[in-house]
Amino acid sequence: MIQNDFYSQENVGPFEIYNLGDFELEDGGIIPDLKLAYTTHGTLNEAKDNVIVVPTWFSGTSKNYESYIGKDRALNPEKYFIIVINQIGNGVSSSPHNSPEPIAMANFPNVRIGDDVRAQHKLITEKFGIEEIALVVGGSMGAQQTYEWAVRYPDMVKRAAPIAGTAKNTVHDFLFTKTLMDAITSDPGWNGGNYSSHFDVADGLKRHADIWAVMGLSTEFYKQEGWKLFGIETVEQFTEGFLQPLFQSLDPNSLLTMAWKWQRGDVSRHTNGNLEEALGRIKAKVFVMPLNEDMFFPVRDCEAEQKLIPNSELKVINSLLGHFGLFGVEPDYFTQVDNYLNELLAINVAEAVAE
Amino acid sequence: MIQNDFYSQENVGPFEIYNLGDFELEDGGIIPDLKLAYTTHGTLNEAKDNVIVVPTWFSGTSKNYESYIGKDRALNPEKYFIIVINQIGNGVSSSPHNSPEPIAMANFPNVRIGDDVRAQHKLITEKFGIEEIALVVGGSMGAQQTYEWAVRYPDMVKRAAPIAGTAKNTVHDFLFTKTLMDAITSDPGWNGGNYSSHFDVADGLKRHADIWAVMGLSTEFYKQEGWKLFGIETVEQFTEGFLQPLFQSLDPNSLLTMAWKWQRGDVSRHTNGNLEEALGRIKAKVFVMPLNEDMFFPVRDCEAEQKLIPNSELKVINSLLGHFGLFGVEPDYFTQVDNYLNELLAINVAEAVAE
Repeated sequence: MIQNDFYSQENVGPFEIYNLGDFELEDGGIIPDLKLAYTTHGTLNEAKDNVIVVPTWFSGTSKNYESYIGKDRALNPEKYFIIVINQIGNGVSSSPHNSPEPIAMANFPNVRIGDDVRAQHKLITEKFGIEEIALVVGGSMGAQQTYEWAVRYPDMVKRAAPIAGTAKNTVHDFLFTKTLMDAITSDPGWNGGNYSSHFDVADGLKRHADIWAVMGLSTEFYKQEGWKLFGIETVEQFTEGFLQPLFQSLDPNSLLTMAWKWQRGDVSRHTNGNLEEALGRIKAKVFVMPLNEDMFFPVRDCEAEQKLIPNSELKVINSLLGHFGLFGVEPDYFTQVDNYLNELLAINVAEAVAE
Repeated sequence: MIQNDFYSQENVGPFEIYNLGDFELEDGGIIPDLKLAYTTHGTLNEAKDNVIVVPTWFSGTSKNYESYIGKDRALNPEKYFIIVINQIGNGVSSSPHNSPEPIAMANFPNVRIGDDVRAQHKLITEKFGIEEIALVVGGSMGAQQTYEWAVRYPDMVKRAAPIAGTAKNTVHDFLFTKTLMDAITSDPGWNGGNYSSHFDVADGLKRHADIWAVMGLSTEFYKQEGWKLFGIETVEQFTEGFLQPLFQSLDPNSLLTMAWKWQRGDVSRHTNGNLEEALGRIKAKVFVMPLNEDMFFPVRDCEAEQKLIPNSELKVINSLLGHFGLFGVEPDYFTQVDNYLNELLAINVAEAVAE
């Protein structure tokens, strides 16, 4: 096990840990004593029907959603019981760098989106006795998990809001993710996954960050000097002073575990590859919420899936930041998100389904 | 000097060589005995006013434009004298791998778009005695050179058609190009530019190709299985069987020389950074021709520049292939290009300027 303070309680907590015991994986193998790290906001009501589940995105933790939650917000902890769950492999939940043998580091098994959602289901049913979810909402890989929730547990999920992500990963995204992975694995310091410190992989993580700089933002972000939205003066300070150190603080194997999972996100695994049939299973009211400048989850890819979901609407979020709009540094980003989520949460789902 | 058969007369010729002697570079230093490789199509008329100049794109050679030229085409050799000129560093003209000391390999100097255009100007004035150019047209880095021609020699260039490129490179493009360069230089086999064979850099060139797979095509290309336009059955055959071998056959230092040049393409160097003033110098009738799915020379970036050019029009080319639309594998690509170029060539420029 490797010490990496980025993932500490001090840095990304406070979080709780739920131990699921030995957890069988879809691709074979088990994670012994699978630990899910999660945070809760608000109180579970007596009817246990005020639950919002929020899964995390690539490279992110439950900490990233703090800015989405507040008493004047759609995700209102005075009204809802909000559970933010760190995906497997994200560095906080069970992950290569924090797991003991036999699954430490390079021996960490392949994990799929379906594994996450089954594990999250165990957490909320076993630990909290929850049988109904008012809303599942998440960005990027959080959207992948949101779709998986809605397809796998259609009677349980009443509403779903996948933001900036797809139900079935695209070929283009698979190739993009490959370049992110290759940036890491091409660093001799990565050493087949058995480095002694993430600092050994600093060069690879820097290249990883540089590819994010190209694909994670938008051409318009750079034209309009969008880094100033981060309070940063120059593009060099944005890439070298912000993005590179950000990714260099993360665990390389954790990023690889998530990237492998991201590449293979696909709800049509439930229906022998038939995406229409899989999305047709969804009973939730769904707001599909792409970001208008997203370079790898473009609106039209999200819209194509939205059209296959029976009770759904397309709600485009405008953000200069492209995919990184998810960070919410623009003043009107959360206004849009909250308006859409408030509208969705106000819908009486029984009626909506009958429409 | 390194043997690389990709750049041979057999593979990309037949081409002619013009020796410019010692050539001073904008960034300092000289290329001794600078050799420009070029091809001509058609015959220079007596008035010497039927000239079309075509500069090459990144990783490309004069060979790539053969499919743009023909007797039933806009670039008609029965009517025009078409000179296709290989840019400096492209592996055919003077380049790191084919130059002797003191500029061999890692010692090859930095070259700018302005150097190319000055060298091309010498070629066509000294060798052919040409004083007027009916049209400069080129794709991508060829567009950068086209803009440089129109700004640097405004009285000489009557018409210009930059396809899928910009007059001033964008910040986003600079960062994208950096990832392409880092893919090569991170390969230990590159050895600071002093490899003994381009095969030593096969891994880096493969990663370089994989980044092209993400940015060079379009999300829609992959959704619509556009590789079938190349007569290729699967995406794996497209990336591993086509793109990777394509880039692995090229010279790494050549790609780096071109990438450095591409990053810094900027006609506003003539006007102390004032792009509006630089583009305002253009006297040519200009058709700005972006590709609608281009991920790094997006239409809106090209349009922003077009609006600064006095006598210009925006002519968008539709192509599923994104930037690689330039390869012209779609049946209607050349129809669009030829229609636009025919329209442009038919314009009486004296009249047009007086409009």
